[in-house]
Amino acid sequence: MKLKKLYTFINSELDLIEKALKEAMQADNPVLKEASMHLLQAGGKRIRPVFVLLSAKFGNYNIDEIKDVAVALELIHTASLVHDDVIDNAELRRGAPTIKSKWDNRIAMYTGDYIFARAVELMTNINKIEAHQVLSKTMVDLCIGEIEQIKDKFNWNQNLRTYLRRIKRKTAILIAVSCQLGAIVSEAPQVVQRQLYRFGYYVGMAFQITDDILDFTGTEKELGKPAGSDLLQGNITLPVLYALRNERLRKEIIDSFDIKNNKENMQHIITLVRQSGGIEYSKRISDRYLQKAFNILKELPNCQEKTALLNIAKYIGKRKF
Amino acid sequence: MKLKKLYTFINSELDLIEKALKEAMQADNPVLKEASMHLLQAGGKRIRPVFVLLSAKFGNYNIDEIKDVAVALELIHTASLVHDDVIDNAELRRGAPTIKSKWDNRIAMYTGDYIFARAVELMTNINKIEAHQVLSKTMVDLCIGEIEQIKDKFNWNQNLRTYLRRIKRKTAILIAVSCQLGAIVSEAPQVVQRQLYRFGYYVGMAFQITDDILDFTGTEKELGKPAGSDLLQGNITLPVLYALRNERLRKEIIDSFDIKNNKENMQHIITLVRQSGGIEYSKRISDRYLQKAFNILKELPNCQEKTALLNIAKYIGKRKF
Repeated sequence: MKLKKLYTFINSELDLIEKALKEAMQADNPVLKEASMHLLQAGGKRIRPVFVLLSAKFGNYNIDEIKDVAVALELIHTASLVHDDVIDNAELRRGAPTIKSKWDNRIAMYTGDYIFARAVELMTNINKIEAHQVLSKTMVDLCIGEIEQIKDKFNWNQNLRTYLRRIKRKTAILIAVSCQLGAIVSEAPQVVQRQLYRFGYYVGMAFQITDDILDFTGTEKELGKPAGSDLLQGNITLPVLYALRNERLRKEIIDSFDIKNNKENMQHIITLVRQSGGIEYSKRISDRYLQKAFNILKELPNCQEKTALLNIAKYIGKRKF
Repeated sequence: MKLKKLYTFINSELDLIEKALKEAMQADNPVLKEASMHLLQAGGKRIRPVFVLLSAKFGNYNIDEIKDVAVALELIHTASLVHDDVIDNAELRRGAPTIKSKWDNRIAMYTGDYIFARAVELMTNINKIEAHQVLSKTMVDLCIGEIEQIKDKFNWNQNLRTYLRRIKRKTAILIAVSCQLGAIVSEAPQVVQRQLYRFGYYVGMAFQITDDILDFTGTEKELGKPAGSDLLQGNITLPVLYALRNERLRKEIIDSFDIKNNKENMQHIITLVRQSGGIEYSKRISDRYLQKAFNILKELPNCQEKTALLNIAKYIGKRKF
């Protein structure tokens, strides 16, 4: 089952958004244009635009208006990936070389800045100050999340709470806000705006936990980057946190990191984490968030958009990449 | 004569802005807070807030409203300096260590992102979509300017037009927009909005050319960073462009750059540029922009704010740091 099959009824709108994304990345400067388009062309699930559109259907849906919101959210996500890759010194993203590996870190930083600015610019087509307030607050949170992630790198003593707060800022809020802004801009009832925000938040948490699981269970081909990349960068995710609870595994994992060539040890560490029960534990936590998302949907009026949201949430719980 | 003496009648408002700048930089994360405050505390002329306030006096001046605009513009300027320092690998800014030298480039990048986001967030207190449109467009231009600057580094074949377009995007537009937004938000007449924009643009061009001159005529103490820093980074500014027109100097300057230890040659190159007449030439170009700024002021109604704008423009033509 492919994700896209779950919302074929917005296919033509998604095509419009794909076109608008390309338009937003146009620039006279050839490097800027190529660098911006580069990541866009490598694909991505466009899950944020999908959530914007589906949520907007709970109000007065106007594609001309909502399109800009959907594009802006995908751009903000893209910009944060570009800056992420600078930080992680990553070579691959979505199976393609990162901007920093194809050009350099300076180009990557300003390309990210440029994409952020274009997102803000696009949003100014929306004459609803509340939408701008919600989005700018989200951008602030995203930055705080990134700084927290740097701070927490290789910190073997962090706990579940630190992890959850970090993925909330890093991922869940932007997905929650995608749903919320769809509802705000289409002037859906306030109670629906809040419900959709919470739905997005829970789905976003499950989405990131699943991502963190896949880093240990996926293949390089499925992930578009080597398995174990997160841990190699020092990002201690939920499966690892669980494994660290076991004193023997804790010692073995941390000791492995003290050896210089981490890449060679990564397969060994991946095996340790898998054997620890950390994958199953993380799946249980992810499922708990998904259950909360399902519960919220029950409060929303029945429609094909609600069914699509339900199926996307279910898909996230099962996805392989 | 000190710059601040030219507009003592807005002293109390500037104090408010200084306070608001500090408030905007508050963050729970200690690194983020310290890194953000760091550059702010190192000072700066706050010329953009001054232009916002003075321009707003040509309309219905409301300090509670205009304050956020003034703070947002200073924050955007600050954020761009933070990202600038990442690119330039600079060690000193305003006489203090840069964020990247005190922490690292990753922290500097996200601190810049955070300050940008805070600026956008603060602007959402202003319920005038036109103001958001102008500002977001400016942020896009700023990024393009930065990328152009990277592209033009060590490009000995660039011309006057390339240089002027670059400093327009890098500096002049943000100063022009400071004046324009002061006028827009205070609802000054549209003709005044346009005049103030143009005034700011011309002053901004003169300001950056003067900055580029000072890099060759100032002392390390006056500049807060070593003289010749721009050229050392590969930024070819107006005095150098002029010197490069002379075939002998051109050869000597470019040859000096081919030798590994640039710092030792810098004093020699500074001397060459000074002897070329490039300083005087740049002053003439700067004065031409200032004259255009003066001419626009003649069209504006007489008031103490106009006198202050005139004196600031005069000051910029003479400033030593």
